[in-house]
Amino acid sequence: MKRTLVKETIKKAGQEVLLKGWVNTRRDHGQIIFIDLRDRTGLMQVVFVGIEGAKELRPEWVVEIKGVVKERPANLVNPKLITGKIEVEARELKIFAKSQELPFDTAAAELKVALPILLDYRPLSLRHPKVRPIFKVQETIIATFRESLVKQGFTEIQVPTIVPSVTEGGAQVFKLKYFDRDAFLAQSPQLYKQIMVGVFERVFTLAHAYRAEPSMTTRHITEYLGLDAEMGFIDSFEDIMEVVEKVIRDILAKLGKERKEELAVFSANLPKVSPKIPRLKMREAQQIIFERTGRDNRKEPDLEPEDEREICRYSLEKYGSDLIFITHYPTKKRPFYTYPDPKEPEFTCSFDLLGQGLEWVTGGRRINDYQMLLDHVKEWGNLPEDFEIYLQAFRYGMPPEGGFCLGAERMTMQILGLENVREASLFPRDMERIDVRLPKKEETKK
Amino acid sequence: MKRTLVKETIKKAGQEVLLKGWVNTRRDHGQIIFIDLRDRTGLMQVVFVGIEGAKELRPEWVVEIKGVVKERPANLVNPKLITGKIEVEARELKIFAKSQELPFDTAAAELKVALPILLDYRPLSLRHPKVRPIFKVQETIIATFRESLVKQGFTEIQVPTIVPSVTEGGAQVFKLKYFDRDAFLAQSPQLYKQIMVGVFERVFTLAHAYRAEPSMTTRHITEYLGLDAEMGFIDSFEDIMEVVEKVIRDILAKLGKERKEELAVFSANLPKVSPKIPRLKMREAQQIIFERTGRDNRKEPDLEPEDEREICRYSLEKYGSDLIFITHYPTKKRPFYTYPDPKEPEFTCSFDLLGQGLEWVTGGRRINDYQMLLDHVKEWGNLPEDFEIYLQAFRYGMPPEGGFCLGAERMTMQILGLENVREASLFPRDMERIDVRLPKKEETKK
Repeated sequence: MKRTLVKETIKKAGQEVLLKGWVNTRRDHGQIIFIDLRDRTGLMQVVFVGIEGAKELRPEWVVEIKGVVKERPANLVNPKLITGKIEVEARELKIFAKSQELPFDTAAAELKVALPILLDYRPLSLRHPKVRPIFKVQETIIATFRESLVKQGFTEIQVPTIVPSVTEGGAQVFKLKYFDRDAFLAQSPQLYKQIMVGVFERVFTLAHAYRAEPSMTTRHITEYLGLDAEMGFIDSFEDIMEVVEKVIRDILAKLGKERKEELAVFSANLPKVSPKIPRLKMREAQQIIFERTGRDNRKEPDLEPEDEREICRYSLEKYGSDLIFITHYPTKKRPFYTYPDPKEPEFTCSFDLLGQGLEWVTGGRRINDYQMLLDHVKEWGNLPEDFEIYLQAFRYGMPPEGGFCLGAERMTMQILGLENVREASLFPRDMERIDVRLPKKEETKK
Repeated sequence: MKRTLVKETIKKAGQEVLLKGWVNTRRDHGQIIFIDLRDRTGLMQVVFVGIEGAKELRPEWVVEIKGVVKERPANLVNPKLITGKIEVEARELKIFAKSQELPFDTAAAELKVALPILLDYRPLSLRHPKVRPIFKVQETIIATFRESLVKQGFTEIQVPTIVPSVTEGGAQVFKLKYFDRDAFLAQSPQLYKQIMVGVFERVFTLAHAYRAEPSMTTRHITEYLGLDAEMGFIDSFEDIMEVVEKVIRDILAKLGKERKEELAVFSANLPKVSPKIPRLKMREAQQIIFERTGRDNRKEPDLEPEDEREICRYSLEKYGSDLIFITHYPTKKRPFYTYPDPKEPEFTCSFDLLGQGLEWVTGGRRINDYQMLLDHVKEWGNLPEDFEIYLQAFRYGMPPEGGFCLGAERMTMQILGLENVREASLFPRDMERIDVRLPKKEETKK
């Protein structure tokens, strides 16, 4: 007999079905045992009367149940379940695997357990209906990022993460032993995606990025997934913002269409986006913030977190948009490859897309002239020989180009209004945890 | 004026167009200069008569050309180019970037340069028409892998690569400094994809895998892309092979449909697949090989490379299939988590899919019983505390499950008949190269 998924039972009233899944909850009424069975498509109430083994069932046991789908009496319909109008009357029960006693009550609607404990028990807590949907939302963000860019003529590429030298600032990089030499983990796929503009003009990649940040904020993890794109033959850096707009609109539209249920779990409202996302230069934003709040950051080289929140409030009030592009960050605050604006070279052709007070996307035009790039490499305190392969791409002809990056976990967190980016990573790493809490150095095994 | 891509010019005879791209080749006929312009969609002949700057053009210069599309006289049609019936008469020329002198002749139909040199100049050699298509084929393999599994009810997940301990054999693992402790690079996403069966039942992931193999064969690189899948509630390990068959058929069908041009560049014929891929136990395969060749490996614990080639020849002759599943490898030769066949526990419910003499896919059923898994962890010489998060997933109820993995670079190599797996990796790493050739230890900078 073929397995029936929970969702498929809805149309099978009166029929015999074979269900497989986990015991989500159980209620023992003496002669009658009720369980909610969980599979990847939903929950189903199953009733056992006089079935051997049913009395021992406990949460997270894995079972197979043969039974008959029955319509529930009108007064017993459960409107919270998509299967709430039916239940299954068990005929046979088979146990695939038992579970040891659970460390906390997984049947509760809310997991009222501190995040570190939830992470200590990640394989279990990920199964909870308030946790699992986070990663269906993330799956859709990532899939739509790809889909949108393929439609816009981009080629998906695969780039390496082991790199020969430190290219974006030394302190925050992980060093590894590579045979009898040292190598490093890439802080981003930046240099490789730029090289690939010379091959496919428009490329994107999903790349793990590694930051050895010795900080324990709610916004930082040491390994994250960057959704990165890069494109050649741009007329100006506004071409890149057009692509970003399209990608973001596509993602939000797809989430609104296919992830309604998951968004509802978090009472998440998708951000409002005006027909064209507003654009302000950083200095203009600082002026507006000064006028609105009296806070004078007009000479600061960057927006402070409170500035980012304020300019997003302004954007929503003035343009009806939760999203806003801030452009023209100072040259000295951006990486060596960022293109200075020819009209005011102390500012760059770069942008951040802010959403609801936080950075969603960062990007900009890059320097494509070999000599200028070489000069910048040196001015920023780097050794050209550490950039051999990268510089080659420009030595042999590179068009005007630029690109952008968005962090998969951070976007997931912001769309769902999560409090900590760790919640948006299946197995988050930070300076105190790799799956398990790391022992202090002195406890480390030899 | 908006850019016209080379491919779009075909229908624009008589019209003015704006082309952008690289000078692929140039021919100087004195008063007339011809170039083949290359963009991401193809090559286009452009003719310059009396246009300033045209005489200086050299290969790999990046240019913008305004011109008029003309039909070529019948005797000058180039049947090798999709744009061979037309050419563009240049009116204006703009140079975006010049190229330095090239290290080898990139205009040749074949790059007759040794692989190490090609890799030294990877940003340039990747642009060549005999190299670039490899990565369009790879893109299609990867995209179709995902597409096929999503259709089969799988969820895409993102798993980490920094891991806290060595879990699959110690010698071939890269160690890194993680703040004041040691951590390691994952040799596969195996443990995480298994954990996630407890959450989504069916999952897949594209994961970088790292092997510190101190070997320089044509089939090994130190960082590669695994296409990994795992599924729960299987009735037997044959369910997994069914999914593999579907994925492989989908990939081959998509390549045949969308990558004809690229396959033709390598004179690659897609493998023949019979309506059902044949399946043989390893011991049966060894018996057949003995009968066909007299080579008696019937007591060996694995197939040797020559055995793999021979059994593929047999499969093609007998079943008309370039692909064949070999099952039931010995328990002691497989990882600790592999499920022993209850009928003959010295062999496992595992399989390799061989294609044209080489392994394409490896997979099998896993142990899902907590106690049995714990016993195997110890028997294989591991410490249970190194598997804390992994073992948890089984402690709290895991269904019968299994999965498989295919290497993206290796499959690309075999589909295209490439000689070295490095050719199928954009930026291949091995013990002697990370982008550039690694200096010997004594040359390393302090």
